[in-house]
Amino acid sequence: MKIRIDRKKSIPLYLQIKHQIEENIISGVYSNGFVLPSERKLAEDLGVNRNTTIKAYESLKDDYLIDSKIGKGTFVIYEKNIEQSLDFYQEIYWEQIVGNFSFENSADIMSKIMSDGSDSNMISLSGGFPSKDIFPHSIFEEISKDLLHKNKNVFFHTPVKGDKEFVITLKNYLYNNKAIHSDINEIMISSGAQQALNLIINSYIRPNDAIIIENPSFFGAIQLFKKAGAKLITTQVKNSALDLDHIEYNLKTSDVKFIYLVPNYQNPTGYVMNLETRKGILNLSRKYQVPIIEEDPYGELYYENYAPSIKSLDRDNFVIYVGTFSKTIAPGFRIGYIVADETVIKKLTLLNQFTDIHANTLSQNIINQFIRDGYYQEHLMKIREEYKVKRDLMMSYLDQLSDVLDYDKPLGGYYIWCRIRKNISVKNLLVESIKQGIDFIPGEFFFPEIGEGKNYFRLNFTYGSREEIKKGMEKLIESINNLKR
Amino acid sequence: MKIRIDRKKSIPLYLQIKHQIEENIISGVYSNGFVLPSERKLAEDLGVNRNTTIKAYESLKDDYLIDSKIGKGTFVIYEKNIEQSLDFYQEIYWEQIVGNFSFENSADIMSKIMSDGSDSNMISLSGGFPSKDIFPHSIFEEISKDLLHKNKNVFFHTPVKGDKEFVITLKNYLYNNKAIHSDINEIMISSGAQQALNLIINSYIRPNDAIIIENPSFFGAIQLFKKAGAKLITTQVKNSALDLDHIEYNLKTSDVKFIYLVPNYQNPTGYVMNLETRKGILNLSRKYQVPIIEEDPYGELYYENYAPSIKSLDRDNFVIYVGTFSKTIAPGFRIGYIVADETVIKKLTLLNQFTDIHANTLSQNIINQFIRDGYYQEHLMKIREEYKVKRDLMMSYLDQLSDVLDYDKPLGGYYIWCRIRKNISVKNLLVESIKQGIDFIPGEFFFPEIGEGKNYFRLNFTYGSREEIKKGMEKLIESINNLKR
Repeated sequence: MKIRIDRKKSIPLYLQIKHQIEENIISGVYSNGFVLPSERKLAEDLGVNRNTTIKAYESLKDDYLIDSKIGKGTFVIYEKNIEQSLDFYQEIYWEQIVGNFSFENSADIMSKIMSDGSDSNMISLSGGFPSKDIFPHSIFEEISKDLLHKNKNVFFHTPVKGDKEFVITLKNYLYNNKAIHSDINEIMISSGAQQALNLIINSYIRPNDAIIIENPSFFGAIQLFKKAGAKLITTQVKNSALDLDHIEYNLKTSDVKFIYLVPNYQNPTGYVMNLETRKGILNLSRKYQVPIIEEDPYGELYYENYAPSIKSLDRDNFVIYVGTFSKTIAPGFRIGYIVADETVIKKLTLLNQFTDIHANTLSQNIINQFIRDGYYQEHLMKIREEYKVKRDLMMSYLDQLSDVLDYDKPLGGYYIWCRIRKNISVKNLLVESIKQGIDFIPGEFFFPEIGEGKNYFRLNFTYGSREEIKKGMEKLIESINNLKR
Repeated sequence: MKIRIDRKKSIPLYLQIKHQIEENIISGVYSNGFVLPSERKLAEDLGVNRNTTIKAYESLKDDYLIDSKIGKGTFVIYEKNIEQSLDFYQEIYWEQIVGNFSFENSADIMSKIMSDGSDSNMISLSGGFPSKDIFPHSIFEEISKDLLHKNKNVFFHTPVKGDKEFVITLKNYLYNNKAIHSDINEIMISSGAQQALNLIINSYIRPNDAIIIENPSFFGAIQLFKKAGAKLITTQVKNSALDLDHIEYNLKTSDVKFIYLVPNYQNPTGYVMNLETRKGILNLSRKYQVPIIEEDPYGELYYENYAPSIKSLDRDNFVIYVGTFSKTIAPGFRIGYIVADETVIKKLTLLNQFTDIHANTLSQNIINQFIRDGYYQEHLMKIREEYKVKRDLMMSYLDQLSDVLDYDKPLGGYYIWCRIRKNISVKNLLVESIKQGIDFIPGEFFFPEIGEGKNYFRLNFTYGSREEIKKGMEKLIESINNLKR
């Protein structure tokens, strides 16, 4: 253990010691479990008072970097492990889900999904993250080097609605690749799709406003709507369609503020809304003057045929379209966008300048360049190919379980939505699966009404490597077999 | 004009043409005013139908990149100019401020401050931005190259409350440099100070809650409090002090939720609260169990003596401390932070995961490394030196105006707060100054009560170069002389 202390410095000795140990821990030089010399030994080696080393160790304990136990001495408890620190999902508050699940604490659970993990042997089939193995590192390196080298703009504010060049790039991209026609005044960049949805809800929704929503639907949206006090009118997803008569009935009889839809490879079901339903809903939206919020994080991740968004069929701006680069590039970049009527964009901009002012400047510029230089299209082709292989791999295992569960093949996106047919409880399966070392998300999360979806669960096939999917699915089969016994 | 078309590509010809022209415009090859060949000429050159070039030009017009006028032909209307695009403030809706100013439209004005400029000859003394000339480009280049090269984490989510390593770095930084003691559970990273304040307000403030606030105070905070429906109880800033009896009277008689303070080099006045007031307010906070929100964006930018934050005196977590790197590193990075009691941090984290989930991962990692490698301290020393010179330069001009205005020398921060003594209206001065080619922020913005502050205006001395400050101040003197005549 090499520690240098400098008595000339104004920094207290114990802090000099602490900082050097800390640096070695965080950089991974002293890995988890690494045993440190005793306070007495270290004090002798460095020629300092023992109180100094005691104070340094105390301070490291306060930071949860080291711990000591009788018989074991003092050791590092910080794990520097990329694979592990990517396993965000693992700190999920399992007791809450498995034991005493209710929507009241689901916000807390979501927070824990975002936290980093504690058990690196777990295989995650639960998260909604892109593959950790196919980021175009070198391209991002090159682009950001270039931007930071010569472009002062990356240090400054962008306009509230987004960097001007990026908005133009996005407009062109949406036109050429998603057939979405828009004007630059109809686009706003957001800090991810979640923020986009939050801005829309905060700008327009008042307590008791009614929202028509697919059943099941995206967890984060359900939470936001409920938080705003909205009344959720659910409409069943069935055979790639929604019941238009049911929707029209509700539009007639309730004061509906928005229709919220995820028509492409929806989270959690993976379903693609058929064209007839899309057109039908757009007509209803026009007829009853109720706008549609179309969230489309997965639209570019098709593994069979491309499906057009509702927005691309929309000529009169009845659709507020929410997109994101979190599922296709990187969630850490926190870049999403909204395409909507100019009056909507103005209202959202007005709110956003008091919320977080604007999305990250560097991320906006990196993605702008990534698209402009043609890398994004290449990257999409690559991940579509890889995710399709992983989906098929996961399905090949699920097909071995046809006596106990069924699912619909997802034509794109991130998820396979499974329904347990036999008398196996999803909660028990989750408990057993965690014992085996895998996890997934119970279906209940995705239903606005408490008590629904008890037979369902969601598997993710994008995040884990092929090897992890294989192992994970073997463990799932094992878990189910254990429960059948 | 070199344009290549490729008939084998699936992209329509007009779009191929459009994209190449657009790229040349945005990269600055075709600068503002550049005249394009006529549609007919271009069609002949490329051997395409004239409708194709017409369609390409129409589409470029839709993007506001080109325009055509009879007699002048078709020309570029997009200005690629870094200096200019940094002049965010210029699109400020001057008619609104000067003509029909009211707080109702100030949100819109703030949005326009963020928009990019339209007149690059203006010298800005209005913005609240760091110097555009002293970013450590090469260090950021190096750090981000390294991060993007080997660290997968920068592409992924961080925990809602911020990257774990960054939180530890920040904790240590705050302890060593600001004497703020905290536990990692008492820190949350936000997307800038504005978002931090927004989270606090959205979590705790209900309509009609009373807030004690300095008069004048930070514009963005006043707006957020008003938007939340809070009742603002103003307390006068006078000789580096606040009237503690007045504050105590209000704590006794009103149901006060928070005391909001910017004690270090406040925006707009530049005042530093004296130690006695700090201690006194902290005592009142404890006595009446009313927490303090201490916003401290400028605390590290002292040009004479360091002033301790109220938080550093706070032993019982009565202070919610809000910091940011926007004023010391770069506003485009959108990184701020909150230090507060763990229960507060938990509540804010819960809200933030539905707002924008977490602050930008790459920015968090860049700043983390910047601090850890010791660059931040160096950078602070450098900017303190430069800003002090600029402050003194600006004061040397103001001293020539001692017959019409007075000001207190700011001991740190970004601003000089001027009071016009003679019968010159600030509105008229702004109109005249804009004619001369400079701008500033009228004092009215910073007073919660409409009608106050009519004799004040705020000058910024950090953003412009020394040369620009010289020129700008000459123009201000000229403007005042014109009005005196």
